[in-house]
Amino acid sequence: MFGIYLENLRLNSALVHSINNYVTANDCANVLLACGASPIMSDDLEDAIDIIKICDVLNINIGTLNTRITKSMIACGMKANELNKLIILDPVGLGASRMRNKIVSDLISKVKINIIKGNISEIKNLIGIACETRGVDANLSDKLEENNLEKIISITKKFCEAHEIIIVITGEIDLVCDKNKAYIIHNGNFMMSKITGAGCMLSVLISAFVAKSNNLCDATAAAVIAMGLCGEKAYARMSKLDGNASYKNYLLDEIYKLNARELDAGAKYKKINL
Amino acid sequence: MFGIYLENLRLNSALVHSINNYVTANDCANVLLACGASPIMSDDLEDAIDIIKICDVLNINIGTLNTRITKSMIACGMKANELNKLIILDPVGLGASRMRNKIVSDLISKVKINIIKGNISEIKNLIGIACETRGVDANLSDKLEENNLEKIISITKKFCEAHEIIIVITGEIDLVCDKNKAYIIHNGNFMMSKITGAGCMLSVLISAFVAKSNNLCDATAAAVIAMGLCGEKAYARMSKLDGNASYKNYLLDEIYKLNARELDAGAKYKKINL
Amino acid sequence: MFGIYLENLRLNSALVHSINNYVTANDCANVLLACGASPIMSDDLEDAIDIIKICDVLNINIGTLNTRITKSMIACGMKANELNKLIILDPVGLGASRMRNKIVSDLISKVKINIIKGNISEIKNLIGIACETRGVDANLSDKLEENNLEKIISITKKFCEAHEIIIVITGEIDLVCDKNKAYIIHNGNFMMSKITGAGCMLSVLISAFVAKSNNLCDATAAAVIAMGLCGEKAYARMSKLDGNASYKNYLLDEIYKLNARELDAGAKYKKINL
Repeated sequence: MFGIYLENLRLNSALVHSINNYVTANDCANVLLACGASPIMSDDLEDAIDIIKICDVLNINIGTLNTRITKSMIACGMKANELNKLIILDPVGLGASRMRNKIVSDLISKVKINIIKGNISEIKNLIGIACETRGVDANLSDKLEENNLEKIISITKKFCEAHEIIIVITGEIDLVCDKNKAYIIHNGNFMMSKITGAGCMLSVLISAFVAKSNNLCDATAAAVIAMGLCGEKAYARMSKLDGNASYKNYLLDEIYKLNARELDAGAKYKKINL
Repeated sequence: MFGIYLENLRLNSALVHSINNYVTANDCANVLLACGASPIMSDDLEDAIDIIKICDVLNINIGTLNTRITKSMIACGMKANELNKLIILDPVGLGASRMRNKIVSDLISKVKINIIKGNISEIKNLIGIACETRGVDANLSDKLEENNLEKIISITKKFCEAHEIIIVITGEIDLVCDKNKAYIIHNGNFMMSKITGAGCMLSVLISAFVAKSNNLCDATAAAVIAMGLCGEKAYARMSKLDGNASYKNYLLDEIYKLNARELDAGAKYKKINL
Repeated sequence: MFGIYLENLRLNSALVHSINNYVTANDCANVLLACGASPIMSDDLEDAIDIIKICDVLNINIGTLNTRITKSMIACGMKANELNKLIILDPVGLGASRMRNKIVSDLISKVKINIIKGNISEIKNLIGIACETRGVDANLSDKLEENNLEKIISITKKFCEAHEIIIVITGEIDLVCDKNKAYIIHNGNFMMSKITGAGCMLSVLISAFVAKSNNLCDATAAAVIAMGLCGEKAYARMSKLDGNASYKNYLLDEIYKLNARELDAGAKYKKINL
């Protein structure tokens, strides 16, 4: 069921424009090549609004911001909307600074975003920022666990409905949610938190999976499962000599090697209709 | 015949100043160390024009541009000219945005560039930009293949003559051309297109090889052959467990280990006098 | 004796804010995760002065400067002082440009820095800059060797006393010095000079080690020994197939795996009371 999205990507490729932070840019570009897509990274306003024209999708990552780049994000996002290109947002460190809150607030008010992926803290802040003038209860827990899943899904679903958006929450359990359904995903490995940029890599992977899909939510879930599954496979390859650097290499290698059949066979998820 | 350029570099080192894109900067720096050179990367106008003074050569890569950095490229390029340092240009993504076309147009009109390396699409755009006010036929094909080699070489030769420059075109076949001769190079491996920055790495490798050489064209060909040969060797080292991340590591490892004898023994090329 | 600092870090973690150069940012972030700390990298003035509030320590690396970032360094450094957070400075390429000299001069006059780490050339320039209006003898040699250790320690000690600071000088021999004592450290491996960023990685490692320590000088020495020891272990893991890319991975892997007992057992140092 999910493998088809990977197969489709490997057959049709996709050109992904990522306004990326510079810390993880290289890994993100290699993840895109690993899954069958191609990367272009441009963060200058003038350059980016031209680059988006030839790309299939726009990924925005706010990890290393500055005022020049935030302007590019808004302008390039508006251009992507005009050209009917999908936009994925990775609100890295949302809540940690006023500037990060400001750019995300600006983006969701001025640009139609299709998918936002963050950890529970970032998504909590996202919903808080989006709802702050409306007094909505966004009192999410700080951890995504079995015993608070129901509440988190309920709040997230409302946000998805109001904003016509897909939300991905990553953690020990991953959640992919739109207004109609939620995927609760149990793939993944603790080593993914021992390397920098696993989240950024997931964000570009989602961008590639959805680029030419006609089912955004399922393609997003496919990417989240693929990432988690590769995280498991990479861990299985580790020897006693290996640490987090080797693990990162193995993770990218697994994405490179993954095929549709393995993705379907390894998927650990539950679907809930909302 | 080509091994001597590597040997020379390993004996005399070279300090390479690269105004690099941030996506591939780390790999490019490690490639320089692998081949026996040393990297300095500085993209600020004020800083860069001081740094170039202590360096042997300047590499300019336009992969992640902004208006601040384009100014540095021009100013640092002019300073390099003044100091008689060689300049290598990697016009990443030329043709994909007006800004990229503009900076390359500015560079070739204001700065004496010694070597430009690009894929066929970038070089096609380069020749188009350089010739656009002169109505010259720059109708290059989009692929460099045996059956159009002759035409491509003929057009490229004219450009080399007019601009006193060396052109490198990369692809399945690589071409190194100046006004008098062309090297048609068959080294390389398809995996090089599955990692980000193989082109950027080649560009800094050329910079290192030519830094202290008195035969620019042959030293350039030596670097192109070295890169392709290391790409082959890296592929030979791959196991079934490996993907593009391991491949990238192997590629750099091979550059680190390559010696003059192996380079000469592995070179697959044809030389044509023009 | 030194292992306790690593153990403490692994138990209590530390959030390290690094204003990092973009060439080595990814490796530095992964080194922080490897040693048990967490990285945040932000170089925008507005963003950085918020980010520092939630961090334990600030690392400043001047490798890829521009005027926007130098302003952030000063402002964020002053904010860190105000909040009583430790500051580590890595004056990459000091002496190679007026801009690098200027920012270091500004930093040491406007911001209370706790630790500065550089190679002998950078530290020589540092002492020269700091002393230039006072005519002090800063005539350091260009190499740190057994036969000039005494003189270098004597000059460095005076600087440490005058500036209430810890100085780390890296090279074949490493030196950690404050006003009362010096550690002469013999750990390390020549391969560390064949990868880009070993110095930057050491700088963030020191930041992590000192973040929650109450003995700055010993915690700094512990980090320097840890880095050198991991450099040795990484070299021991190399096969004939490996080059500098594999070495870099092994180095990070070793940091990930290192424990307190191994650190104590492998430490090669001499302590001198001054």
